[in-house]
Amino acid sequence: MLPEDQLWFTEYHAPGGMAQSWLLQAEKIDERRSPFQHIEIYQTASFGKLMAIDGCVMLTTRDNFLYHEMMTHPALFSHRGPQRVAIIGGGDCGALLEVLKHDTVQQVTQIDIDEQVTRLAEIHFPELTRGNDDPRANLLFDDGLAWIRDAESDSLDVIIIDSTDPIGPAEGLFGPQFIADCFRALKPGGVIVQQSESPLIHQALIKGIRDNMRAAGAGDLRTLGFPQPCYPSGWWSATLAIKGEGSLDAFRHADASNKAFDTLYYNAELHRGGLSEPAFLRAALE
Amino acid sequence: MLPEDQLWFTEYHAPGGMAQSWLLQAEKIDERRSPFQHIEIYQTASFGKLMAIDGCVMLTTRDNFLYHEMMTHPALFSHRGPQRVAIIGGGDCGALLEVLKHDTVQQVTQIDIDEQVTRLAEIHFPELTRGNDDPRANLLFDDGLAWIRDAESDSLDVIIIDSTDPIGPAEGLFGPQFIADCFRALKPGGVIVQQSESPLIHQALIKGIRDNMRAAGAGDLRTLGFPQPCYPSGWWSATLAIKGEGSLDAFRHADASNKAFDTLYYNAELHRGGLSEPAFLRAALE
Repeated sequence: MLPEDQLWFTEYHAPGGMAQSWLLQAEKIDERRSPFQHIEIYQTASFGKLMAIDGCVMLTTRDNFLYHEMMTHPALFSHRGPQRVAIIGGGDCGALLEVLKHDTVQQVTQIDIDEQVTRLAEIHFPELTRGNDDPRANLLFDDGLAWIRDAESDSLDVIIIDSTDPIGPAEGLFGPQFIADCFRALKPGGVIVQQSESPLIHQALIKGIRDNMRAAGAGDLRTLGFPQPCYPSGWWSATLAIKGEGSLDAFRHADASNKAFDTLYYNAELHRGGLSEPAFLRAALE
Repeated sequence: MLPEDQLWFTEYHAPGGMAQSWLLQAEKIDERRSPFQHIEIYQTASFGKLMAIDGCVMLTTRDNFLYHEMMTHPALFSHRGPQRVAIIGGGDCGALLEVLKHDTVQQVTQIDIDEQVTRLAEIHFPELTRGNDDPRANLLFDDGLAWIRDAESDSLDVIIIDSTDPIGPAEGLFGPQFIADCFRALKPGGVIVQQSESPLIHQALIKGIRDNMRAAGAGDLRTLGFPQPCYPSGWWSATLAIKGEGSLDAFRHADASNKAFDTLYYNAELHRGGLSEPAFLRAALE
């Protein structure tokens, strides 16, 4: 049992049969009930601030760098020169900030349905929203499914699907129609990356994502695992694919090794290693 | 809060300000109080069986393959032809089983202070103790510190320190004298690997391990991270070093790629990628 004289935030993950708890310094410090979801902010004892949406931890100050770096740099270095990028979801703006580090990028459009996520991130995670005033960044608060459906064909180099779990507002982002629409909007050779939950406890979901991408025209496809302590099982994944011909193994390794910006976790060798999926995962996905 | 009408096992990790809980199918199914520690066995809802020692999760059926593979194969493939191996700790015998997969190995001596850990593993994790009758395996229930102190100089190819946390019986295994004794017992070019806790929440401990190894004569040294959902933060590490001259980057990559045995997580590319430590960790260790 948790010490009862202390404050805790607990996320109970039913499919995993697990729960994770964070010791808090105080009661909830902020919250918003948007038309879409319930967003809460807590001050933890050792992970900095924590944002939860509908009871699920979205990020903490201390460990969000893992997710944000791994959702962006492998995809961007897998494209020969990404200029036009779209982020679906991503309201905390941490992925946007990483994308803007790439000097090939000319325009990033971020489409999150819930403006309140970004407003709370500006207050409580200002280190993540520093890129929002970049002239290349275009923040829209709208329906990502509709935006992608209406996007011009062959118009985007990279699409990043940085969504919440596949329940609630994000459910459609895990469906085959949305992924087909993304592939239509990508240029040939374009790269898509979708957050694909835990390699240990969400294998059926990962398989579904990969099936969607294959059906939509993925020439190559890979699921990269990475540590993410604040998510169930502490282990998360990003599933990448290329539209049409191309190989994810042929990513710009030299550019990644000599990148002109800092990362805390991502590096070219971890990227290359991650492309080799562990046997247990490969077996589960076949 | 956790659903109160269900049974849970919770590990509270004070330094991390976190706790992790597993849903149980039943009350505790077995336990032993040895002269050294309190060992408990639980049947979880989705991670199989769980062994805890003094309240800390040691392993579960579902995810122990990660730790056992990463504590053994990187070290064994970093040696040109490991024949004589010692495991300090390792009472559940999962690391021993992985070591025995290497056909160069002629003798593995495992020294765990607590026979009851192995006896409970034989009952509840029989898939891990299948190697115990191998004629190359020599199981001793004794003090690992004394065994290493008394070991012949230059007699071992690989030493694996598969211990519990650095409190209680394992405390001495994290001290400089024990590591110096290990290096004395290793042949030149021998490889040592020590479980070194979480890259996110135990950086001071990892630094101490590396300082010990450097002081004892490590020619090359690296901390490899890997996912381990049942441990605090879901992210764990193994710190490897070579005695005297040698490079961990020069591991037997071709042998690892063409290995004659199966692994579920370990592969040659993940091994190579892991050798490139993330910048945040390198900064914390300098």
